Amino acid sequence: MEHVSPGALAQSASAGIGRDIYELAARLYPICRSITGDGVRQTLDMLSDHIDLKRHEVPSGTQVLDWVVPAEWTVRAAIITGPDGQKVVDFADSNLHVVNYSQPFTGALPLGELKAHIHTLPDQPDLIPYRTSYYAPAWGFCMAHEQAAALPDGLYHVEIDAELKDGSLTYGEYLHRGQSEREFLLSAHICHPSLANDNCSGLALLALLAKSLRARKTRYSYRFLFAPGTIGAITWLSRNEDRLHLIDHGLVVSCVGDAGRPAYKRSRRADAFIDRVMAHVLGTEPGARMLDFSPYGYDERQYCSPGFDLPVGMFQRSVHGEFPEYHTSADNLDFIAPEHLEDSFRILTGVIDIVEEDWTPLNLFPKGEPQLGRRGLYAALGGNKASGATSMALLWVLNLADGKHSLLAMAERSGLPFGELAAAARLLVEHGLLAAAS
Amino acid sequence: MEHVSPGALAQSASAGIGRDIYELAARLYPICRSITGDGVRQTLDMLSDHIDLKRHEVPSGTQVLDWVVPAEWTVRAAIITGPDGQKVVDFADSNLHVVNYSQPFTGALPLGELKAHIHTLPDQPDLIPYRTSYYAPAWGFCMAHEQAAALPDGLYHVEIDAELKDGSLTYGEYLHRGQSEREFLLSAHICHPSLANDNCSGLALLALLAKSLRARKTRYSYRFLFAPGTIGAITWLSRNEDRLHLIDHGLVVSCVGDAGRPAYKRSRRADAFIDRVMAHVLGTEPGARMLDFSPYGYDERQYCSPGFDLPVGMFQRSVHGEFPEYHTSADNLDFIAPEHLEDSFRILTGVIDIVEEDWTPLNLFPKGEPQLGRRGLYAALGGNKASGATSMALLWVLNLADGKHSLLAMAERSGLPFGELAAAARLLVEHGLLAAAS
Amino acid sequence: MEHVSPGALAQSASAGIGRDIYELAARLYPICRSITGDGVRQTLDMLSDHIDLKRHEVPSGTQVLDWVVPAEWTVRAAIITGPDGQKVVDFADSNLHVVNYSQPFTGALPLGELKAHIHTLPDQPDLIPYRTSYYAPAWGFCMAHEQAAALPDGLYHVEIDAELKDGSLTYGEYLHRGQSEREFLLSAHICHPSLANDNCSGLALLALLAKSLRARKTRYSYRFLFAPGTIGAITWLSRNEDRLHLIDHGLVVSCVGDAGRPAYKRSRRADAFIDRVMAHVLGTEPGARMLDFSPYGYDERQYCSPGFDLPVGMFQRSVHGEFPEYHTSADNLDFIAPEHLEDSFRILTGVIDIVEEDWTPLNLFPKGEPQLGRRGLYAALGGNKASGATSMALLWVLNLADGKHSLLAMAERSGLPFGELAAAARLLVEHGLLAAAS
Repeated sequence: MEHVSPGALAQSASAGIGRDIYELAARLYPICRSITGDGVRQTLDMLSDHIDLKRHEVPSGTQVLDWVVPAEWTVRAAIITGPDGQKVVDFADSNLHVVNYSQPFTGALPLGELKAHIHTLPDQPDLIPYRTSYYAPAWGFCMAHEQAAALPDGLYHVEIDAELKDGSLTYGEYLHRGQSEREFLLSAHICHPSLANDNCSGLALLALLAKSLRARKTRYSYRFLFAPGTIGAITWLSRNEDRLHLIDHGLVVSCVGDAGRPAYKRSRRADAFIDRVMAHVLGTEPGARMLDFSPYGYDERQYCSPGFDLPVGMFQRSVHGEFPEYHTSADNLDFIAPEHLEDSFRILTGVIDIVEEDWTPLNLFPKGEPQLGRRGLYAALGGNKASGATSMALLWVLNLADGKHSLLAMAERSGLPFGELAAAARLLVEHGLLAAAS
Repeated sequence: MEHVSPGALAQSASAGIGRDIYELAARLYPICRSITGDGVRQTLDMLSDHIDLKRHEVPSGTQVLDWVVPAEWTVRAAIITGPDGQKVVDFADSNLHVVNYSQPFTGALPLGELKAHIHTLPDQPDLIPYRTSYYAPAWGFCMAHEQAAALPDGLYHVEIDAELKDGSLTYGEYLHRGQSEREFLLSAHICHPSLANDNCSGLALLALLAKSLRARKTRYSYRFLFAPGTIGAITWLSRNEDRLHLIDHGLVVSCVGDAGRPAYKRSRRADAFIDRVMAHVLGTEPGARMLDFSPYGYDERQYCSPGFDLPVGMFQRSVHGEFPEYHTSADNLDFIAPEHLEDSFRILTGVIDIVEEDWTPLNLFPKGEPQLGRRGLYAALGGNKASGATSMALLWVLNLADGKHSLLAMAERSGLPFGELAAAARLLVEHGLLAAAS
Repeated sequence: MEHVSPGALAQSASAGIGRDIYELAARLYPICRSITGDGVRQTLDMLSDHIDLKRHEVPSGTQVLDWVVPAEWTVRAAIITGPDGQKVVDFADSNLHVVNYSQPFTGALPLGELKAHIHTLPDQPDLIPYRTSYYAPAWGFCMAHEQAAALPDGLYHVEIDAELKDGSLTYGEYLHRGQSEREFLLSAHICHPSLANDNCSGLALLALLAKSLRARKTRYSYRFLFAPGTIGAITWLSRNEDRLHLIDHGLVVSCVGDAGRPAYKRSRRADAFIDRVMAHVLGTEPGARMLDFSPYGYDERQYCSPGFDLPVGMFQRSVHGEFPEYHTSADNLDFIAPEHLEDSFRILTGVIDIVEEDWTPLNLFPKGEPQLGRRGLYAALGGNKASGATSMALLWVLNLADGKHSLLAMAERSGLPFGELAAAARLLVEHGLLAAAS
């Protein structure tokens, strides 16, 4: 297979890209998303400003694998008013204040009864937690523990002006068509409300990564999926079962804007090509982490369920659940920054470069080294102590070009960067020393 | 295959079990055992107070593999009397004083000649060593080095009133029948005289483990073998060659009463199921050791000889030969304690639990996660930071239940305790989500 | 296959061998070698004082794989005379002063122009570097940086009385014939001028190793190759393509006389028998290093090119390019010493011992342990704490003699020295317990 255009275009596109991603994430941040409803649609609208998204609406009640598409949730107001008539919490101040997917409720309760519906974080008393109740009918509020602890006894008035009715589940897709119909799936969950890292960062990064690919002629096709967590991935899998065999690589992307070092959770297969690519790319990132698959986390849970077992890993920075801001009001726009988003973008672009440019060469002069000096490919004056990295890359490619090593396999064995070996291979092809293994 | 009853019965039986094992070991301790003779028979009598042992007598002279069953040894007295007419050592004080399997001898010798027949431990001058001479005709005494060094010159009178004559080699077997004729072999050597850890501890522990199984309906059959070291194992192997293919798992058990941390020596195969079970069980025991197979030690030498290569490992606490009390008079009843015996019993019970309860499940809803919440199997309120271990076990079992992972394989990959996964699997079976892989 | 005579003869031959190797290296040191020419012939003459070398002359212009045998180089004088008429450098003082393979040149140049032809080491200002220009026509001088920096302006007279004309490339071979035509290739490069470690040490060591083998009846045939680097190996490979399948093991040997600890660079195959042997032998050498293959270094580059992929590794002490004396005038006769040469000789002899003596035994009594005591093979008095290494070797050999483990495999698994296992196997053969696996 012919190797394809280098990452030059994508790289030039990355100038200032961190700022662009941040700005898009900041626009997405205030929206009150849930697994269904207008928040998802507004989010897809904003992403559509950058890429030509295809939107799908799947009616409530549709059977999707073992699940059923739930009712559509709308919340208009959620307020607790205290015994003194003052507002205690108001959803208008923060959409974390209401338990996501709350049932409607209006009534007056004494403090003791109300507290059964109030969620706080005693260890982080000034933060509002993020809570959901998608699959058990309930209503509730979230607030700072220190505020809840200070509430006086008395009768509280609660109003949750919400609605759960037949509607649809909404998700968006964007396909960048490459030369092949083989696909690289990139997936981000769209269901979290005002949480900046989890996952405004992932939605914004993927949208602008998709946008940057428009200028690049690729070998693979790239499918970007923006869908609500769990039920969205399950819905998409259910509707695309006959196409899943086309997926050669995949990444779930979330929490990519914070100051933590990059981390990759391997696919269930553990040795899929994407796992090897991520190991190579993160191998040169100081402090980066490679984590084994576990069936807890984001939508890799669904993609890597045993009936699908897709080659899909998970890319993030600080690992979800391990940073104190996770699922709290502290996961706000101060928690993410353009430089971290840009760093994540650079890493994913490097991953795509390898996926695009890997190929398996064959040394046409495999017996002994071909005479590189005669071809101007070697420092003419021998005996010099310094052996330039380029010479090493040429020698490694020639030595391993037995038709059994792709460039990535060469990078793994030699310890040289993939890009250096890819450049050496191009040079050797130009000089007639290398061809593609059949 | 259906999974079988949990270890609940065995566990309830273990209350006070350490005390029971200790008491049995203490009864066994004073007996003068050897590879043949009445000491072995008396020992089997005591074990028969607890389990219905089948006793085998194999005549002297019987060919067993490359060996021949030796003559039966009887010792009635063994005394050295000094120049002054005082007893220097008397077998009646400690059965370690006579070299085990000594030829009879009566005579008077000057000190110089006598010393060629006296064994001591110069580095442990107050201890009596344990010595044997089974296969080379010899007579001798063992005593404290400090005592031997102080012996005055002169003529010593020696009397060893012993007998070596045709008789038989004795061993005992107990079979706990399970649903299957596939067997788990548990073997302890019965030939050592007054050594508490090596191996009164192993004899007593296995007898009471066998007793505890009577209340348990098991999948496997459990064969308990109490036989003299080396020649006993060889005799048993020789007489059971046609049945060895039934042995799926095996453990040699010795030195299980001291304060050392548990240790397991792998079978020659190194990756037998029993090796994996022991690695999992000891993985959570602080300070536990996993040792590679070597062809030195106890009867695993015979079970793991290349012509048999049985899946038999060796369980012990302090490793034989590595603790200073080993094969000396310091390996007495003060060296072992009920709590250590109980700890060893608990570990072996845990091993049996896994052997009994391992099975290979199949996820009946393998595409995506089945909806656990709907079935009451999942914390209803999402977004909570704490993910209970039970939820993790459910998710791991579902994810790995592809028919290629047994519960033990799941424990190995997930790092979760086997018992947690087994409990999760039971729950999933109850809810119709899991079945046995065919 | 029968095992062959132990290394006893070779070992006795090693007394004083370090001194002998050093003396031969010292004789070789002053010669001005290059990839062609009389320096190579003089070197082969000196080696022929010890072994019956077969000399090959391959005409200039001969096509060898992708290369062409170059013209033969002769240099008679190389002098720079300063503005004051004094000699600045004279090849007669050190053959490093002229760039190896320089074109002839006579002329007068101002200092500025001359400097483009002068090579120095600014970081090691008192040392003369070693430089070559085999495949790009050029002329030049090498000198101490501090001398070059002090040269006054002015017109310099340069004379390089050299000649490049049709002749031949010369290499030498010595074959020690063994019982089998299967070969062990030992190769050293002969093209470096006055550099003691790189590679007078390797040439001298291999010549005397070859000499020492004359007294030994071997199983393998041993081929010693003394050829110029790169082009010599390529020429030899080109002329012996049809015989390469006979090579079972190989080592490139260079830099074996310095005080560094021994190092082995694995073959491209990484798990060839020679790689395993070197790992075992160096496993007991303090500070020894095992290095992965890389396609840079000495002639293993050619032997391990993908079209040949021979099982050839590289043995050295300080790794070329990593010691500061490398390719400078400091790699002189003070840099190597008889004790290091002897140490290298001892290691290679140990390697040959294993290659010669490895075989795969079969236990004739595989069921249980055979009774060693009856055969006088075991300490008669059991129960002793100390188990001699010899007993352990006997037990390991018996246990692993299932026809699937060679002695080397037994050494790898047991951690015992190969020689101890080989001795145990001999003893077991003598007692009828062991035979060769078919």
